[in-house]
Amino acid sequence: MIDLQHLSDITARALADIKYPGECGGLYTPVDYTLSSGGKRLRPALCLAACQAVCGDPLKALDQAIAIEMFHNFTLIHDDVMDRSDTRRGRPTVYAKWGDVQAILSGDALLTMATARVMMCDNDKLRPVLDCFNDTAQEVYIGQQLDMEFESDDNVTVDEYLRMIFLKTSALLCGSISLGAIVAGADRETVNAFYRYAKALGLAFQLRDDWLDTFGDPAVFGKRIGGDIVNRKKTWLFINALNEAPADMAAALSDNPGREELVKAVTDIYRRLNLSERCDLLIQDYYNEAVDAISEAHISDADRQWFVDLAKKLSHRNS
Amino acid sequence: MIDLQHLSDITARALADIKYPGECGGLYTPVDYTLSSGGKRLRPALCLAACQAVCGDPLKALDQAIAIEMFHNFTLIHDDVMDRSDTRRGRPTVYAKWGDVQAILSGDALLTMATARVMMCDNDKLRPVLDCFNDTAQEVYIGQQLDMEFESDDNVTVDEYLRMIFLKTSALLCGSISLGAIVAGADRETVNAFYRYAKALGLAFQLRDDWLDTFGDPAVFGKRIGGDIVNRKKTWLFINALNEAPADMAAALSDNPGREELVKAVTDIYRRLNLSERCDLLIQDYYNEAVDAISEAHISDADRQWFVDLAKKLSHRNS
Repeated sequence: MIDLQHLSDITARALADIKYPGECGGLYTPVDYTLSSGGKRLRPALCLAACQAVCGDPLKALDQAIAIEMFHNFTLIHDDVMDRSDTRRGRPTVYAKWGDVQAILSGDALLTMATARVMMCDNDKLRPVLDCFNDTAQEVYIGQQLDMEFESDDNVTVDEYLRMIFLKTSALLCGSISLGAIVAGADRETVNAFYRYAKALGLAFQLRDDWLDTFGDPAVFGKRIGGDIVNRKKTWLFINALNEAPADMAAALSDNPGREELVKAVTDIYRRLNLSERCDLLIQDYYNEAVDAISEAHISDADRQWFVDLAKKLSHRNS
Repeated sequence: MIDLQHLSDITARALADIKYPGECGGLYTPVDYTLSSGGKRLRPALCLAACQAVCGDPLKALDQAIAIEMFHNFTLIHDDVMDRSDTRRGRPTVYAKWGDVQAILSGDALLTMATARVMMCDNDKLRPVLDCFNDTAQEVYIGQQLDMEFESDDNVTVDEYLRMIFLKTSALLCGSISLGAIVAGADRETVNAFYRYAKALGLAFQLRDDWLDTFGDPAVFGKRIGGDIVNRKKTWLFINALNEAPADMAAALSDNPGREELVKAVTDIYRRLNLSERCDLLIQDYYNEAVDAISEAHISDADRQWFVDLAKKLSHRNS
C-alpha cells in the first residue's frame, strides 16, 4: 500500500544523506541549508508513489524524487532573490542569510546537482528521463516568466492565466509523477494517465489556493484573507471580474481605498458575478478530470484509490 | 586540416540558427541577445577541433560545441549580475538591459538549454557526455566560489590560487575538448591527452593574463596597465609578493596611495622578487606540459601541430 508518511520519510532520509564535495568553500552550505528545511515534499512523494504503483518498489525512483526536490528548491532559492523575500518555511531565505550573489551561484550549483541526480537510472531510461526533466524545467521557467509579465498586463485572459498556472505549478507535478512512472518501466498509456492526472491536480490545487485567499475561513486558513486582492494579484477570480465588470473593478480599485474597504468591495463584485461558485465548479471539473485520468493507468485499484483520495484532499482542502 | 576560422564560422551559423519556443514572453530574448554577441568562441573551436582530429568531421560535435558556448554564456549572464557589470563585449550586459530578475531567470533557462543540447549525441555516448558536462559545470561553480572567497582572504597560497584558476578557467576548456573527443569516439588515452593539454593551456592562458596586466606593453595590450594591482586582485604575482615581501607590500598598499604611485611601488616589488621572469618560466612550463600532453593523443602530426601552435599563440600572446 502507498503510504504518504513513509514516502516522505524516505525522501527526508535521502536528503539528509547527500554528500557534498570538499574544498569548495561555502558553495554547498546554502544548498544543504535549503534541502534540510522541510516543506511538504509533495513532489518527491508523487514521484515515489507512481513508481510504487507501477513496479511495487518506490525506491527505484528515489534518485529522481530527490532530483525533483533539488530542482524545486533551486527554483525557490532563485525566486527568493527575484522577489527579495526574507522568509520561507519559517526561516531566513538563502537570499536573506547569504545575499544575492551567493544565492545565485549556489542555486546554479543545485540545478546541476539535480541534473546529475536525475541521471541515476538504468541506461535504457536515461534519455526519456532527461528529456522529461529538461522539458519540465523549461516549462517552469516559462511559467515564472509569464507570471512576472502578467503583473503589469491588464489584458490577461482566463485561458492565458490557466496556461500560466499549468506551467508554474502543474508542470513540475507532471514531471515528478512521470519520472516515477518512467523509471518504474510503465507503458506509455500509464505515463500519459499519470501526466494528465498531475496536470488536473495542479490546476485544481492552484485554483483552490486562489479561492481560499478570498473565500477561505479565516479561522482555518492560517493566513489573513484578501492578500491577493490587496496585491491586485491576477488570480482566476480577479481576471474574470476585470473582464466581466471592468467599470465596477476600476471603481473598487481606484482612490487608494483602505485594506478592509478594498477587500470588501472586490469580494462583493466576485459574489455578484457568482465567481465563488463558478471557481468551485471549475475546481470540481479538474478534480473529475484527475479521477478520470488515473482510471486509465494500469495500476491496482487500491493504488488508484490512493491517487483519487490525494486529489480529493488537495482540491477540497481548507488551508 | 583544422581551420580555426572555419570552426568559428560553423559555430556562429549554428548559434544564429537556434529556434526558440513561442508564447514564452521575453524569456529567451536575453538568451538570443547573448548568444549572438560574438566573443572569441575559443571553447566551441576546441571542441570541434578535437572532434575533427579524432574522426575527421568537426560537425559530429557541433551540438556539444554549441552546448559549451551556451553554458559559458549562462555563466557570463549570472556573473554580470553578481558583479553588477554593465558592459561586456562592447554592449550592455543582460543585467544592465533587462535587470537582475530577468538575467537570473533567462540564465537559468540557458543552462537547461545547454544541458538539453549537449545530449544530442549517440545513445552510447550519452552518459559519458553528460557526466563530463555536469562535472565541468560544478568545477566552474567551485572556481567562481573560491575566487569570490579569495577576495577577502589574505592567506591564499600559490597552490590554492592555481587550483582556483584551473577550476575557473581551465575546467571549461578541458570540458570542451573532452566532449569533442568523446563524441568523436576517441580512445581513453586520447581523451586524457586532450584533457591534460587543455588544463595546461588554460593555466598558461590565465597566468599570461595576470602577467600582461602588469608587464604588458600599453601600446599593444589594449587595456590600461596595472588594473589588477589597483584592485588588489589576488593574482599569481600579487600572492607571491604578499608571501615573500609582506612588509614591503603592506607599506606599498597602505596610506591610500595614488594610482600611478601604487602601481609603480608594487611593480617594483615584483621586479625585485624577479616575479616577471618567474611567471614567464611558469607559463613556459605549462606550455611545455600542453605540448607533452598532446603528443600522447592518437591524432595526425598535422593536427597535433595545430594544437601546439594554438598553445604557443595563447601562452605567448601580447594582448
